[in-house]
Amino acid sequence: MICIMFSNGKSKKFPLGTLPIEIVHNINKSLANRVLSASIDGKQIELDTPITQDVHIEFYTWEDPMGKKAFWHSSAHLLAQAILKMYPKSLLTIGSPIENGFYYDVDMSLSEKDFIHIETIMIENARKCSSFHLYKVSKVEALNFYNKNSYKTELIQNLESSNITFCRHDDFVDQCQGGHIPGTGCIKYVKILSLSGVYWSGDKNNKQITRIYGISFPNQKELSDYLLRFEESKNRDHRKLGKELGLFTFSERVGSGLPLWQPKGAILRKCLKDFLLRKQKKYGYEMVVTPHIGYKSLYEISGHWDKYGKDSFWSISSPNKDAEFLLKPMNCPHHCEIYLSQQWSYRDLPKRFSEFGTVYRYEQKGELHGLMRVRGFTQDDAHIFCTTDQLLEEFKKVIELVLYSLQSFGFKDYTAQISLRDQKTPNKYIGTDDNWKKSEHAIIQAATDKNLKINISYGEAAFYGPKLDFIVKDALGRSWQLGTIQVDYNLPDRFNLQYRGVDNQWDRPVMIHRASFGSLERFIAILLEHTSGNFPFWLAPIQVMILPISYKHILYAKKVLNLLYEFDIRVNIDIRDEKISKKIIDSEMSKIPFMILVGDKEVTCGNISVRAHKEGNLGAYSKEEFIDLIKSKLV
Amino acid sequence: MICIMFSNGKSKKFPLGTLPIEIVHNINKSLANRVLSASIDGKQIELDTPITQDVHIEFYTWEDPMGKKAFWHSSAHLLAQAILKMYPKSLLTIGSPIENGFYYDVDMSLSEKDFIHIETIMIENARKCSSFHLYKVSKVEALNFYNKNSYKTELIQNLESSNITFCRHDDFVDQCQGGHIPGTGCIKYVKILSLSGVYWSGDKNNKQITRIYGISFPNQKELSDYLLRFEESKNRDHRKLGKELGLFTFSERVGSGLPLWQPKGAILRKCLKDFLLRKQKKYGYEMVVTPHIGYKSLYEISGHWDKYGKDSFWSISSPNKDAEFLLKPMNCPHHCEIYLSQQWSYRDLPKRFSEFGTVYRYEQKGELHGLMRVRGFTQDDAHIFCTTDQLLEEFKKVIELVLYSLQSFGFKDYTAQISLRDQKTPNKYIGTDDNWKKSEHAIIQAATDKNLKINISYGEAAFYGPKLDFIVKDALGRSWQLGTIQVDYNLPDRFNLQYRGVDNQWDRPVMIHRASFGSLERFIAILLEHTSGNFPFWLAPIQVMILPISYKHILYAKKVLNLLYEFDIRVNIDIRDEKISKKIIDSEMSKIPFMILVGDKEVTCGNISVRAHKEGNLGAYSKEEFIDLIKSKLV
Repeated sequence: MICIMFSNGKSKKFPLGTLPIEIVHNINKSLANRVLSASIDGKQIELDTPITQDVHIEFYTWEDPMGKKAFWHSSAHLLAQAILKMYPKSLLTIGSPIENGFYYDVDMSLSEKDFIHIETIMIENARKCSSFHLYKVSKVEALNFYNKNSYKTELIQNLESSNITFCRHDDFVDQCQGGHIPGTGCIKYVKILSLSGVYWSGDKNNKQITRIYGISFPNQKELSDYLLRFEESKNRDHRKLGKELGLFTFSERVGSGLPLWQPKGAILRKCLKDFLLRKQKKYGYEMVVTPHIGYKSLYEISGHWDKYGKDSFWSISSPNKDAEFLLKPMNCPHHCEIYLSQQWSYRDLPKRFSEFGTVYRYEQKGELHGLMRVRGFTQDDAHIFCTTDQLLEEFKKVIELVLYSLQSFGFKDYTAQISLRDQKTPNKYIGTDDNWKKSEHAIIQAATDKNLKINISYGEAAFYGPKLDFIVKDALGRSWQLGTIQVDYNLPDRFNLQYRGVDNQWDRPVMIHRASFGSLERFIAILLEHTSGNFPFWLAPIQVMILPISYKHILYAKKVLNLLYEFDIRVNIDIRDEKISKKIIDSEMSKIPFMILVGDKEVTCGNISVRAHKEGNLGAYSKEEFIDLIKSKLV
Repeated sequence: MICIMFSNGKSKKFPLGTLPIEIVHNINKSLANRVLSASIDGKQIELDTPITQDVHIEFYTWEDPMGKKAFWHSSAHLLAQAILKMYPKSLLTIGSPIENGFYYDVDMSLSEKDFIHIETIMIENARKCSSFHLYKVSKVEALNFYNKNSYKTELIQNLESSNITFCRHDDFVDQCQGGHIPGTGCIKYVKILSLSGVYWSGDKNNKQITRIYGISFPNQKELSDYLLRFEESKNRDHRKLGKELGLFTFSERVGSGLPLWQPKGAILRKCLKDFLLRKQKKYGYEMVVTPHIGYKSLYEISGHWDKYGKDSFWSISSPNKDAEFLLKPMNCPHHCEIYLSQQWSYRDLPKRFSEFGTVYRYEQKGELHGLMRVRGFTQDDAHIFCTTDQLLEEFKKVIELVLYSLQSFGFKDYTAQISLRDQKTPNKYIGTDDNWKKSEHAIIQAATDKNLKINISYGEAAFYGPKLDFIVKDALGRSWQLGTIQVDYNLPDRFNLQYRGVDNQWDRPVMIHRASFGSLERFIAILLEHTSGNFPFWLAPIQVMILPISYKHILYAKKVLNLLYEFDIRVNIDIRDEKISKKIIDSEMSKIPFMILVGDKEVTCGNISVRAHKEGNLGAYSKEEFIDLIKSKLV
């Protein structure tokens, strides 16, 4: 018998070799109808994989990200099958599920005209309700099978194992590691979305092949909701809004993935920074400022170079080549050096160093995407140096801070994704077992105390400590990982960080990496798409636009401007020689929260006419009343 | 006859070949007794150099920087003469006047014990009242003269001219370009200050030789004033104060010349930035934010790479080596790209883009000096794009802004150093003659309108436009170049910047580079030394320290803290288990403007006892009275 542990903490015994699908039938009939996939000890598996030892098990339905992943992974097989049917000479390479849907890369020219045909074949094949069967073949057999496909041949040659896993459904076979739904029958609706050119293996020296994006659903409502959101998200695309609102730009002469912030975007950044600074000050954070470069050896000490360096760090050489530097890819080593610049006692802890640190990491050009994925970005970074006993209190404070931030921007749906270690492989992790227990317990306790929805993944922790990520749903129902809290037992060791304990002996602090926004760039992108650019009043780059009806009202408009100026309102005058209707439309397009119209009547009465963005005319206001209105928006 | 033009705008005719010393005798007898040096058309010359054409002439006394330069240049000859007398085998290399004194580099070990002896010999020789005579020899003769001195041989071999200038005074001859005082007689006092090891030619592969620093004066009062200031400046050394006050640190693991700002220093930076931002907003500046890197080709377009690149720019390569980037050495090319991101009309100008842009320039390790000379620094940079007709108004506004800044920090003595072109070589400059006239006139007019003390240097303008630098005297009487305004006709051409003119045709804007502080790093260094770390209240990193007399008063102390917190006061509590006298001393040492003492009496009466830094006990205050006092300090 083996012991199966469930995510609700309960456990039950089953015979050795029981299948996950048998377990789910045994414990929950209604779930059995909906289950798409499962994982044991954090590793996604097929529902018909026999279980041979004690494990944590989790089941996934369409509602779970892992359920969708299996659904879309399986759909990618259907896509490849359809392409091969339409174009038998096309060479398949690889496919994968993504955040919204799936793709498959093929060496074959396709056009948008093919989309309906592909969709039709996929649905026809899905209706056959075939199962996915995994089986192993020798490397020689695998190479033989793909002897006309150089891409697959290269992939298989690069695999270390001598046994290669294949997957068959219906008449289609693909080399694959697994993670499917039980059968094709539940894939009811398919939409092929787009094509793009990619280099094989992401290397621009290789041939360009075609990536086909699609998405699939278990019912029509999900499909039509998605298509509506898809249309809406195109209107909300932050790259489009960023250009329309004059927030940021890119220049091919400066470099890809390196945003240039125009004045309105710079205001946005400053407001976000000041917003966090004020709140962080209350929570005892202290700002620090560190350079954007450091010796390469600094990142060898931290271990970052070995882990990420070659693929994503930019190296720098000074004119006299006397030393190798790196463009700062993260702020932690610098903050450790500031910690080391003086001696600390237990009375000084926790020390909380925060920095809006601009860091640079190399991304392939094809992976860059507006502000979502860039090569240089400003983290709202902080590092907390504390004792293990202080972890619970610090977690609670960070959670409060992140929740306050999210709520201030109208994000209402969020989950705490907690990543813990795999207790069966304790040697994979640095730090004592006792410390891990304490910190894992502190994370769960803090999230529970703060009434967060919790999702625990075992085995997903980094080798240096457990973490908590905030998964946030935006107005379109899309999920984003925003705030993060990460425990670190590694850097304190590597940098030999110390504090003098109560017993006057040197002791090792633990370090917490944390961010509320993640990066200003990505957060602004998400915020743009979440709000459609209709920022809350306090954040709007221009808060009030004054529209003089004609030239002769400009003097009065300037008076109003100067008055608002005194209250630190970000206000402009539209002095163009345009009709008032055009000025109103342009102000609406710019999503400016308030318009003030001034004409003969207003000059005579000494008051103003107010319009609110999207709400229209609010009527006549005295200047004092308007300032009261503004103040009420700023509380 | 030749026409001699004077700095007051007047001119007078003299016979061809007249000497400067004759001119000064002719025009101003009293000046003749004090004159040390002269320049024609901006080039410093000997007072006995015959003048052979129409020129602008200027005379310098000890009061002028150029007068001191000639004085200390001549003193360097006396120093070399003395060393050779003491150690005939020492190999002389080069010497030079510096901001405060002069140095000479020799291949010979010296110790501080030699200082008095060197000073004595120098004064003995100075008293001979020898003149400095320049004469030319052929390169062969020069090499022959120095056949036992490999350093001088190398220097002479590298000279392009076939005629080498030597200078003789008394029994001592040195290879030299000129710029001396008439004779050694006025050098009355000499002080040898220090020794340091330097690499020959600044190249660490070369031999290390000895640099001897000294200073000299025309009278004893100047000497003793200097020595007093020298002692005081050691106490005020910003590196010492920065450490004592916990403002910044350096780490050998991050890199030399790359300051790490500790929390109190980061507050200082933030305060300075917010101070300027508020003021700049009033003057119509708009913030922008740009990345810290850019393609190398961007700086080839701007021309910066050719001019400075090899010696001072850091080059960056991405992991896949697909393009060459540079670490941003200046912000102007990025600001030009933002300008280019949209179309502008004459109605939109002036456009004023400001950025606290952190830039990196390579400096030799030996030249690094605390925050004064670093490898990475944050400029309070701005670029104004305007029409030539708008220059006067823009200059006036920038001058107002810089004066406001300087005055806010207690700098009261400043001069506008204006650099204009050499009208005799118009081909050296880019931009039309008409534009140059207009912009030079605008600079002088603006400086005059703003009642600045003006110092004009002809021929000192950059090839791309005239400029105005603010030369500021600090509390120790030392001069610093702080604010700067620079016209640029070059970058608008190179980046093809345009705006649509009144006639609807495309026109070229002119660009102004300007800074108030220069860089935050250098400004904070100067401010630290100027104020001894006694910052104005609004700028003090900690403004109020609450000192509970004993442990039982901490609760009340926290109440006071929370109250002050609400008024955005930067306040801390000294909760250490120390005697109150020790707490007071430590707070004084930290130069915190106010201390609040709370003990039994204060808890009972509900009031506080206030001490002001350096002023001592101010007596009992109600909390409200104290907040009024604070507010009065913040106006």
